[in-house]
Amino acid sequence: MQNFSYRNPTKIVFGKGTISQLGEETAQYGKKALMVCGGGSIKKNGVYEQAVESLTKAGIEIVEFWGVKPNPTLEHTREGIALAKSEAVDVIVAVGGGSVIDEGKAIAAGAASETDVWKFYIGEVELETAMPLISVLTLAATGTEWNGGTVITNEETGEKFGMIREQLHPKASILDPETTYSVNPYYTTISGVDAMAHLLEPYLTSSDEQIPCQDRMVEGYVRTLMETTEACLATPDDYQSRANLMWAASLAWNGLPFSGIGGFAMCAHLIGHSMSCLYDTAHGASLSLVFPAWLEYDFDLYKQKIAQMGARIFDLDAPSLEEGAAAAIESLRAWFKSVGAPTTFTEAGLPLDAVGPIAENGAHCSPKGGLARFDVKAVTELLEKVAK
Amino acid sequence: MQNFSYRNPTKIVFGKGTISQLGEETAQYGKKALMVCGGGSIKKNGVYEQAVESLTKAGIEIVEFWGVKPNPTLEHTREGIALAKSEAVDVIVAVGGGSVIDEGKAIAAGAASETDVWKFYIGEVELETAMPLISVLTLAATGTEWNGGTVITNEETGEKFGMIREQLHPKASILDPETTYSVNPYYTTISGVDAMAHLLEPYLTSSDEQIPCQDRMVEGYVRTLMETTEACLATPDDYQSRANLMWAASLAWNGLPFSGIGGFAMCAHLIGHSMSCLYDTAHGASLSLVFPAWLEYDFDLYKQKIAQMGARIFDLDAPSLEEGAAAAIESLRAWFKSVGAPTTFTEAGLPLDAVGPIAENGAHCSPKGGLARFDVKAVTELLEKVAK
Repeated sequence: MQNFSYRNPTKIVFGKGTISQLGEETAQYGKKALMVCGGGSIKKNGVYEQAVESLTKAGIEIVEFWGVKPNPTLEHTREGIALAKSEAVDVIVAVGGGSVIDEGKAIAAGAASETDVWKFYIGEVELETAMPLISVLTLAATGTEWNGGTVITNEETGEKFGMIREQLHPKASILDPETTYSVNPYYTTISGVDAMAHLLEPYLTSSDEQIPCQDRMVEGYVRTLMETTEACLATPDDYQSRANLMWAASLAWNGLPFSGIGGFAMCAHLIGHSMSCLYDTAHGASLSLVFPAWLEYDFDLYKQKIAQMGARIFDLDAPSLEEGAAAAIESLRAWFKSVGAPTTFTEAGLPLDAVGPIAENGAHCSPKGGLARFDVKAVTELLEKVAK
Repeated sequence: MQNFSYRNPTKIVFGKGTISQLGEETAQYGKKALMVCGGGSIKKNGVYEQAVESLTKAGIEIVEFWGVKPNPTLEHTREGIALAKSEAVDVIVAVGGGSVIDEGKAIAAGAASETDVWKFYIGEVELETAMPLISVLTLAATGTEWNGGTVITNEETGEKFGMIREQLHPKASILDPETTYSVNPYYTTISGVDAMAHLLEPYLTSSDEQIPCQDRMVEGYVRTLMETTEACLATPDDYQSRANLMWAASLAWNGLPFSGIGGFAMCAHLIGHSMSCLYDTAHGASLSLVFPAWLEYDFDLYKQKIAQMGARIFDLDAPSLEEGAAAAIESLRAWFKSVGAPTTFTEAGLPLDAVGPIAENGAHCSPKGGLARFDVKAVTELLEKVAK
């Protein structure tokens, strides 16, 4: 185990009917809120009405800001920041999935400063403070509701960058599993894949090997994500399945599973981000597409841990390390296919000639640290396995 | 899964050499600290020097307060509160094991108020605020470093009571596994038992059954506690074993493993507290003594989950639920014996005629809720199994 420090001040309010507590949580931070929302699905499933009712009851004045897209954009974020400033709101309330909350965090960062928000993402200016943010989560996926991370896309430069800052932790996040009943099968699946990737990328690539608690957290959460994804596909309005999927996805990326594990590399996320950035591929879909191909590409580097994943998550009993690791990759790919997550370019709706542009972008956006080895040649070689 | 809310604002600073960060963490909350310590072991293992050096470097004025006992007392707590007030300290720094930190919390509660501190424990007055507290942990056991709980003993009334309040979370807790090298084998063992009980009592008695993540957390952490306790007994100064034992014990009682599991009953803790209160039995020793006897007493109530514990933690493969559960209890008892944790009155140094007084006290101190069924007759029947 390596040295680390961990602090997660977000209050999680979990369960049926908890959106009624939104007003009370928000009122602790101000009287006027910018309510950040996506494309309108929350008007269909009743979440919007519940949120507005609770905020209104608590005496909160609401300024609505609609139109956050999956893979939220810098341009729309800047509009939100301008609105937050012109309306002099006290607090940001993000109601939606991971994209809405990520953009909510970006607006919270930009609205509390005179600096252009993108400078925080590219590391040109250090974030000092942010407006308080409350989130209402409607999709079990990214874990952003319980961490200080945010990712947005600069469409002008073709860059999808993230930052993680303590100031961006939501003050409170409300997780009502009933809000996810209306998530369609495809999004249920690829959201589960996203959460699995958050767990498995650090697990497979950690520089430290003596991390039994963290390994067991990951193995237990991934098993839960797989079981509950299947159960939600079978019965979309089963409360317990939706609740456990939502809880496992939140636990996946709250920082605990990777505390103390040393360095790790988010390889699938890196390449997936380039797909989303250039072709608007849904985030989770890019991950199921890249993940098995990446494991094959990096087989020798990570085969020990890949084999452990096979034995402990897929109950494989292989005669050798190599066979165990190979079978583990096949099991993961087969599971992705079984729940409808894409594992080829065609299944993800990507043209086969997208390999080149994605490889260029991925190499360009690689952090200088552990992922620098993913140059254009490496990403091309990796992607060619699944460009079919 | 049941509704819940969860917030844990404590900053964990984990690893080798981290006591050097004590001054920096403390200085955020004031310039004069009451340093709460136990019987003097921290002067032998170098922790005291490291703590004082770090505080002094950060310009913190230190008022030392020694003499916290295992099972910390109300009388000593009141002395600490009086000293904190007369010296007008800004912050409490607790350096030691769970007892020192628990009493540190009690002093933090009492020093910020004119109310006698015991009134907070018995629920006569609601705690509103507390002085900031920083902890340096030197024993992997109670988990108090990462929660808002505290337990102290009123020797006058023979009551050992606890309270859990958000205000009592340490602002930061420093966990350097090297500080635990000098913990003797017996305390290493019974401290591991304490952490196991924190996990297994909620796990076995939870009112909700659809809690896969929480179950897997518990199973993973308990396995880690068992493995690392054995490894620390074999090699007391093995860093990785000490680190993983410390981390698992902290994870055990940070509130996450029981979030969403509904109601649960700390039966072994309840009866164990009476032993500690009347006979000064070490907390963990009282738990290994009571635990298997309690499971036999409550066999029919909890056999399903006891069998799951057997299958998933002890790798048992039993032909029936009843046999699986019975074998699980035997496995747990055998493991306690194998690491030197007492499982009978004689092994714990208790006279056989202590059954009566402990049963009287346990029934008297039972909360009115789920544990009211533990009347004198019930506790007597339960304890007679191990009064040998």
